[in-house]
Amino acid sequence: MKSPIITLLTDFGTSDPFVGVMKGVLLSICPQARLVDLSHEVPPQSVMAGAYLLKTSIYYFPKGTVHLAVVDPGVGSSRKAVALRSKGHFFVGPDNGLFPAALKGWGIEQVAELTEKKYQLPNPSATFHGRDIFAPAAAHLAKGVPLARLGVRQNNWIWREIPKAFKTAQGWTGQVLWVDHFGNLVTNLEEKHIPKSFRLKVGKAVILNLATHYAQVKKGTVVALIGSSGNLEISVSGGNAAQKLGVGIGSPVSLA
Amino acid sequence: MKSPIITLLTDFGTSDPFVGVMKGVLLSICPQARLVDLSHEVPPQSVMAGAYLLKTSIYYFPKGTVHLAVVDPGVGSSRKAVALRSKGHFFVGPDNGLFPAALKGWGIEQVAELTEKKYQLPNPSATFHGRDIFAPAAAHLAKGVPLARLGVRQNNWIWREIPKAFKTAQGWTGQVLWVDHFGNLVTNLEEKHIPKSFRLKVGKAVILNLATHYAQVKKGTVVALIGSSGNLEISVSGGNAAQKLGVGIGSPVSLA
Amino acid sequence: MKSPIITLLTDFGTSDPFVGVMKGVLLSICPQARLVDLSHEVPPQSVMAGAYLLKTSIYYFPKGTVHLAVVDPGVGSSRKAVALRSKGHFFVGPDNGLFPAALKGWGIEQVAELTEKKYQLPNPSATFHGRDIFAPAAAHLAKGVPLARLGVRQNNWIWREIPKAFKTAQGWTGQVLWVDHFGNLVTNLEEKHIPKSFRLKVGKAVILNLATHYAQVKKGTVVALIGSSGNLEISVSGGNAAQKLGVGIGSPVSLA
Repeated sequence: MKSPIITLLTDFGTSDPFVGVMKGVLLSICPQARLVDLSHEVPPQSVMAGAYLLKTSIYYFPKGTVHLAVVDPGVGSSRKAVALRSKGHFFVGPDNGLFPAALKGWGIEQVAELTEKKYQLPNPSATFHGRDIFAPAAAHLAKGVPLARLGVRQNNWIWREIPKAFKTAQGWTGQVLWVDHFGNLVTNLEEKHIPKSFRLKVGKAVILNLATHYAQVKKGTVVALIGSSGNLEISVSGGNAAQKLGVGIGSPVSLA
Repeated sequence: MKSPIITLLTDFGTSDPFVGVMKGVLLSICPQARLVDLSHEVPPQSVMAGAYLLKTSIYYFPKGTVHLAVVDPGVGSSRKAVALRSKGHFFVGPDNGLFPAALKGWGIEQVAELTEKKYQLPNPSATFHGRDIFAPAAAHLAKGVPLARLGVRQNNWIWREIPKAFKTAQGWTGQVLWVDHFGNLVTNLEEKHIPKSFRLKVGKAVILNLATHYAQVKKGTVVALIGSSGNLEISVSGGNAAQKLGVGIGSPVSLA
Repeated sequence: MKSPIITLLTDFGTSDPFVGVMKGVLLSICPQARLVDLSHEVPPQSVMAGAYLLKTSIYYFPKGTVHLAVVDPGVGSSRKAVALRSKGHFFVGPDNGLFPAALKGWGIEQVAELTEKKYQLPNPSATFHGRDIFAPAAAHLAKGVPLARLGVRQNNWIWREIPKAFKTAQGWTGQVLWVDHFGNLVTNLEEKHIPKSFRLKVGKAVILNLATHYAQVKKGTVVALIGSSGNLEISVSGGNAAQKLGVGIGSPVSLA
């Protein structure tokens, strides 16, 4: 690809130049790369939140895109640094479950541990692998270096999964996976879980109908709909559901 | 244009990958585009704040720039999705008054409703037109697709206007349009409203002189000046005027 | 350079379109530039914090990069606007000590005051030199205009220095230079200051050992390590040291 895309997803925030410095490394190695920020506001060290955000994003990028994702509480420990391939996309980051969770629907085709020193910065630090190991690997992949050259092939990796809804005697119990900027509660319930007539409980709210869009109901009303990621979302029209219902990531949601 | 510029202005924030996903769609369709974020911190659903920010920005971009602006409380409802042309720039977003308000000085030359399915993602969602309808339209415009091809020509649109100052028996009454990152209060009063000798009231402060720059007065002093957007601004030298005066967007400002 | 890099560091925040407008000016003049944000969250008007962040970033960019840095409490006053060269990099911004502090290790080779009107926007404002004077200068340097053409050569400039640790009868006294997004305390103590056996005091914490990475100790433990910038950092494993210890920028750190 002539102008490869590299996406960046981290829990680094944007007040520090951590992300900017990774971009300096990326462009030093692959000057023609186009860089796209997915989010740098993953809650600190929340690997599963990062996996959810990555999962909802990758579908909208073309084959050949390299996704650099760093939510890495174990930086400097024995956790491995890896690159992997799935459906023609590349992924670079820590081996801590982030990618297997994000790629459950896509599958993982090939994994390399990032052992090859010549594709790292010299003398990598123990606290900033994003800059010293992951960014150089991502930039070399974007330049066309084959995945297998970055290091030793891996057949095992840390397996984690985004929490799934489970069936109960009364119906389904799910949870809030993510709270977006508008306070909408994104759950792990999907259209297939929802019977024609239902009773959805979250916090102190009970919802009996599915809307199609936010402005369908009057301002301030709690509403459930299938959001743009395909998940059941709970919203307050013109308001903030997380604040109004006192609910956050991990809160239970039941469907009967 | 070989490397067209697409600007993005939304109320999406940057914690979610909404903006990154729109960029994935933009670059999938128009790989050579250069993307510039104007702001993603428009207060949620504040169409007029978005219009003000867009108005102050577009002058600094070259002809051919495509401005993708999404402040869209009515997403999924009957509000139209539109693209329009003004002074050689293109604008894509909801038909809710955002563009007419921002473009009052420039005028609107041509408007198309975004009805042509082949310039949208398949099966657009009801809650994320930024990704499914607006980004594809913006990318196709950037690639050179004529505006008229995107859909049905419109001769009517929702008209709104950024609030204007009005004359009173005592002088002029305006309001605070925007509070910037430093706490400076940007008003809808302009140089032409200001007599040689004046008495400017905002919150509990009375200001009698116009300064030329922030550091002209001693630290902590409330000061009025003509800001970089041409509007009268009220600042506190080395401090935060919004906090010090307890004033925000919409607060009245009087000039006598 | 065919696609020069321009980095941006400011205290402008990202809610206003100030940064986006500077990018419009940069790309209008130098369409092939690649733009990288270092940080726009420098604490308002904190010239030394900006200098520290710039210093830790520039090493990771290639020669020819132009660094546009605006932390500028004196905008519009008699402070000079300058461009300078150091180790093949260019720097553009206010003459207020930001660059001399950031470049102490690199040295300054050539300085020009930005007096040449043809490399500015017409009628520069008194409050937004980032847009009207600095961005045009940075874009022209990126296009290959020689530094000397931008204005009058300067042999004097405002000199400031990032605070250094000093020796006491008991050992070394330093301070916290920066608090990162994770709450890690970056100090001005370095590896060379640390004896084999030591007693490090910050806030109410006493630390007796140096770790190599965050996950080395159990969650919640206060830990000291040499961070990715080469400075001594104080962290809380899986937590926020600034919050836990009640410590911020400027707080003293002593090593005995």
